[in-house]
Amino acid sequence: MMVALVRGGGAAVSKLSGILEGHGIPFRRVPFGQRTAFIVEAESPAAREAMAECGEVERVAVTREPFPLVSREVVEENTVVRLTTSRGTVEIGGRAPVLIAGPCSVEGENMLLATARTVTEAGGAVLRGGAFKPRTSPYSFQGLGVRALELLALARQETGLPVVTEVMTPEQVPLVARYADILQIGARNMQNFTLLQEAGQAGRPVLLKRGPGATVQEWLLAAEYVLLQGNPNVILCERGIRTFETSTRHTLDLSSAVVAKRLSHLPVIVDPSHATGRRDLVPAMALAAVAAGLDGVMVEVHPDPAHALSDGPQSLTFDGFAGMAEAMFRVAEASGRPMARGPVLAAVS
Amino acid sequence: MMVALVRGGGAAVSKLSGILEGHGIPFRRVPFGQRTAFIVEAESPAAREAMAECGEVERVAVTREPFPLVSREVVEENTVVRLTTSRGTVEIGGRAPVLIAGPCSVEGENMLLATARTVTEAGGAVLRGGAFKPRTSPYSFQGLGVRALELLALARQETGLPVVTEVMTPEQVPLVARYADILQIGARNMQNFTLLQEAGQAGRPVLLKRGPGATVQEWLLAAEYVLLQGNPNVILCERGIRTFETSTRHTLDLSSAVVAKRLSHLPVIVDPSHATGRRDLVPAMALAAVAAGLDGVMVEVHPDPAHALSDGPQSLTFDGFAGMAEAMFRVAEASGRPMARGPVLAAVS
Amino acid sequence: MMVALVRGGGAAVSKLSGILEGHGIPFRRVPFGQRTAFIVEAESPAAREAMAECGEVERVAVTREPFPLVSREVVEENTVVRLTTSRGTVEIGGRAPVLIAGPCSVEGENMLLATARTVTEAGGAVLRGGAFKPRTSPYSFQGLGVRALELLALARQETGLPVVTEVMTPEQVPLVARYADILQIGARNMQNFTLLQEAGQAGRPVLLKRGPGATVQEWLLAAEYVLLQGNPNVILCERGIRTFETSTRHTLDLSSAVVAKRLSHLPVIVDPSHATGRRDLVPAMALAAVAAGLDGVMVEVHPDPAHALSDGPQSLTFDGFAGMAEAMFRVAEASGRPMARGPVLAAVS
Amino acid sequence: MMVALVRGGGAAVSKLSGILEGHGIPFRRVPFGQRTAFIVEAESPAAREAMAECGEVERVAVTREPFPLVSREVVEENTVVRLTTSRGTVEIGGRAPVLIAGPCSVEGENMLLATARTVTEAGGAVLRGGAFKPRTSPYSFQGLGVRALELLALARQETGLPVVTEVMTPEQVPLVARYADILQIGARNMQNFTLLQEAGQAGRPVLLKRGPGATVQEWLLAAEYVLLQGNPNVILCERGIRTFETSTRHTLDLSSAVVAKRLSHLPVIVDPSHATGRRDLVPAMALAAVAAGLDGVMVEVHPDPAHALSDGPQSLTFDGFAGMAEAMFRVAEASGRPMARGPVLAAVS
Repeated sequence: MMVALVRGGGAAVSKLSGILEGHGIPFRRVPFGQRTAFIVEAESPAAREAMAECGEVERVAVTREPFPLVSREVVEENTVVRLTTSRGTVEIGGRAPVLIAGPCSVEGENMLLATARTVTEAGGAVLRGGAFKPRTSPYSFQGLGVRALELLALARQETGLPVVTEVMTPEQVPLVARYADILQIGARNMQNFTLLQEAGQAGRPVLLKRGPGATVQEWLLAAEYVLLQGNPNVILCERGIRTFETSTRHTLDLSSAVVAKRLSHLPVIVDPSHATGRRDLVPAMALAAVAAGLDGVMVEVHPDPAHALSDGPQSLTFDGFAGMAEAMFRVAEASGRPMARGPVLAAVS
Repeated sequence: MMVALVRGGGAAVSKLSGILEGHGIPFRRVPFGQRTAFIVEAESPAAREAMAECGEVERVAVTREPFPLVSREVVEENTVVRLTTSRGTVEIGGRAPVLIAGPCSVEGENMLLATARTVTEAGGAVLRGGAFKPRTSPYSFQGLGVRALELLALARQETGLPVVTEVMTPEQVPLVARYADILQIGARNMQNFTLLQEAGQAGRPVLLKRGPGATVQEWLLAAEYVLLQGNPNVILCERGIRTFETSTRHTLDLSSAVVAKRLSHLPVIVDPSHATGRRDLVPAMALAAVAAGLDGVMVEVHPDPAHALSDGPQSLTFDGFAGMAEAMFRVAEASGRPMARGPVLAAVS
Repeated sequence: MMVALVRGGGAAVSKLSGILEGHGIPFRRVPFGQRTAFIVEAESPAAREAMAECGEVERVAVTREPFPLVSREVVEENTVVRLTTSRGTVEIGGRAPVLIAGPCSVEGENMLLATARTVTEAGGAVLRGGAFKPRTSPYSFQGLGVRALELLALARQETGLPVVTEVMTPEQVPLVARYADILQIGARNMQNFTLLQEAGQAGRPVLLKRGPGATVQEWLLAAEYVLLQGNPNVILCERGIRTFETSTRHTLDLSSAVVAKRLSHLPVIVDPSHATGRRDLVPAMALAAVAAGLDGVMVEVHPDPAHALSDGPQSLTFDGFAGMAEAMFRVAEASGRPMARGPVLAAVS
Repeated sequence: MMVALVRGGGAAVSKLSGILEGHGIPFRRVPFGQRTAFIVEAESPAAREAMAECGEVERVAVTREPFPLVSREVVEENTVVRLTTSRGTVEIGGRAPVLIAGPCSVEGENMLLATARTVTEAGGAVLRGGAFKPRTSPYSFQGLGVRALELLALARQETGLPVVTEVMTPEQVPLVARYADILQIGARNMQNFTLLQEAGQAGRPVLLKRGPGATVQEWLLAAEYVLLQGNPNVILCERGIRTFETSTRHTLDLSSAVVAKRLSHLPVIVDPSHATGRRDLVPAMALAAVAAGLDGVMVEVHPDPAHALSDGPQSLTFDGFAGMAEAMFRVAEASGRPMARGPVLAAVS
């Protein structure tokens, strides 16, 4: 594919559109951060000449990968997703890795606020918590829904932590986007293309989990669906793939996460809680992700894992979480990527 | 779990509801074909006594499997899905296996009608054809949409073949249900729970494909979501799982399809086209499925596979399809399950 | 790679050897059934000319596959492995599929003879039985060793069934070859290259099981090791691969077995007992293999599976086995490949 | 199972043997480091009483895992494997992680010595290098054999680095054990039980690679075969499992390596070169392994990867290797496990 990047959205964009149309070259035009991207699916000398003719094209890239907007072939520098709350700005994909944590499900006010405070004190940067829970069994707890969204907003207000929560259907997108700083697309919905498109139009960063049966290429193509809506703020999250090994729930595919980071300019994080399904493995895998150069981890923490309504066995205790966070800071520092602790300190001028 | 089956929907149902409520036993009540199912999640002597007290319970089953409505522990006989058109009634899950065929995507009127006639002549019982196509890449052909639904209706009218086509989002369900005899839930949407619930309420049989990364248990739990809407007419379709082997697109997991048939009373069919991705392997795998005792196969056939807009390499030619159908009839006959040829002959008194 | 086939082993072979040496073209010379194969790893015009210069080359093939001796690109017709005992000749890879059966382990004289008679009566063509058992755990029953080989010889004498049994180490090859008609290389040893080479030199057909983590290509390359010893009589056996699905022990990869049959001229059979690990699935998968056009099945049968020393849960009872055999004959007949029943009837003039 | 540990090999051992025999309790007696282990497969009060009766049993453990000698249920402290050369002693499984490096194959004297010096200077502790190469294809380079062993001995003499190299067959064990400090069992031979037993008797530590299709349990059971020979010095090495993902050669299963460390007292290391097959991913995965708390990494390094006779694409250059080593020291330090640099410094008083 060919991609031409034009800065801004004005005259230059109109000019290139006119030239391509004049030459009968089919293209897609997509807002792309500070720029506009023109995608021509089939490379050709005619397209190349048309782009040159414009005179205002910042960059023309020919890509071998089938996901041009997501590809590093088109954008070489890392995309940094920025989240701003009352206490500052968090960067995901910047120099430092980010710690995202919270309960699997929002189960009530007390447990959520207690967890959010623990996340803040230990140096977490973003609060996670499920409101709408996609569950394998229809008989399992399905989340508190809107009530959970309200509680997340409360926790955000109290702690200044930005919030990520899952959106399950296209219709829920506007509702969830009112409360959440980041819209999470769950692993089961990675190829729910209508949902991807709707989420891409909501004006919020999207955290896109890799499906447990999806290749890296399919994952990045799913991200391409979001970027094609004009939303460049996608965070990729590896959370385990299906393999024959049964000692862990899934197999954390850390090397594929690094591959995604090579192929794409988007931030890539890891969710060792869902990947392993075992609390005792979460810290080791979180540290591994930081040492491997990834952009952060998302883990589950609960005040009383033994009585959690979902995913108790993989949820860290408060103490376990704090210990893991400490170790993570040390590894990040040793890796030349010192982590800010919490949204205040993570503020970027 | 415990399940009590009560025949009909009237007084007996009210009576058992009243008794369970009176004893403070939480339950779900679901229309279940000719019966009503009462599901009590936790088995208990109290629940057992309450069910006995009613006096009008046809059967009480305690299930080890987590999908009571889908489980053979509750319904021992095979569920038979019946589709009626102008030319007769097709049974899926009955004695004979069923041949479902058609193009991957509906690309136009001529190709669809030509294919539908070939399917009819060769002895196919149901016409498949994609109108809304979930595609891994946003740059791939996405289907003709409503126009394709209209063409499927036309082909149905011409040939008398009932029609199956995929529905991708909850909002599309009413539209697709107006045209299709069977609503297909694609592999990528197997755990799109909102879609499963919406499809379950549309009054149409649902063909539920197994996700390529899903276990048999997850697949049957997804079917449970549909049955919980009061729709017992679900057809399970295995279409290949993700493995390390690359000589085929996916790995057709025929033994898991047989396992599903053991665990569940629902019909189970196989899609060797998507599983293998290779035309030259489709007939062998289709025959294998019939010999293994499954309820049918769904294959892709195209008048000109080399120029198909999607899935050409796995589409059978008309001749290849006819040859496969002939062989399938012989194997079905040898297996004591002679197949009817086409909807006319498949009519059941 | 390039392969030149020369008939016989005499003057023509010397002539071509001389020419290639004269031109400084490196090659390997391998006895190849009735022919001699000259393998030149890098195709070149010089090699081509040298082969033409010889004047006695029956065929020159250039292969894309990396396993020239195994490839259908070099040998188009099916290889048929013939086994002769007192009661006739069994063909594997000929027109009809073959039924191989017997206990997992030889546990004693009575059980073996009873099983062998059942296999004969039901129409089996070859007797299987483990003497040296590779076991995952060092604490599991490891087989009766030489005593088991003697019992297999006795059963062979009594029933006229040729015998297949596993050889675990290079040093065991001469011993096992004294008793067995076919040397089995187990799945765990598929890439035990020294064993492959030793077995290839023993003058016996080799049954090569696919490793549960091996691709089709690796499997065929393992067979190439055997053929390079001058032994063209290799039978490929698919016995399940490692996948995420846990309802069966492994996943029977039937489509890969068909792929192997397309890529290679060697006979390909299937072992549904080890693949599924479940007695109730074995007949369905055996019938599927026959319907898919493969060359046979190998199953485990035991007089008292509940008390078997190994693999009881997957062993058929005598009745179950007889029923499966009957069904298999019907499917083979319907597939135009009627099976001979037992070694007497399978005799080939 | 039950295991009784008795210190030393003398009177106490005879006493317990006598008691167990007297009670007719079947057992295995195995030298186990400084102790002797008595394994009774079936737990029973009688066995328990017999062990108590002895009066000289240091510890009785009942294990749930099927690999008693390997299990942490029997030995709680970490096993430390010690290698001594002219320049000191290297510990594997001690506090610090260990860096093992060298070429895939020993290709000649110059390349080996240059690599060995680079490994020493960068802080590596053990030299790896293949002499006998198990190759998927019979047409690939199979190693220099004995000549390579001699060169490894030379490199050992020059640098003081202990040496690890693969042994492929039982007969090779004495030969390889004359030259190597550690005998490597390759992934393809993980369940070559005869080889495991032979290697277990050679008086050398054994590095046991996990097979790409093997579960953690199977891997540990393979190690049990070695320990049952009286050799407690086994190093486990994870090197990637077979999954559907194709962007890496295998999938490095880091979490299973951590699981193995939890289940077993044996050292566990990781080979990111074979796991990923990509040079650009090796450092990230090596750092991840150290951060995850594992006992070391084994990587391939070559003076000229583009011209390597095997595994060039995954071999680090000298510069790449040195950079990775530096980063590894920093991460180990930050993890509270500072690494010694090279055998001199790693010497333990």
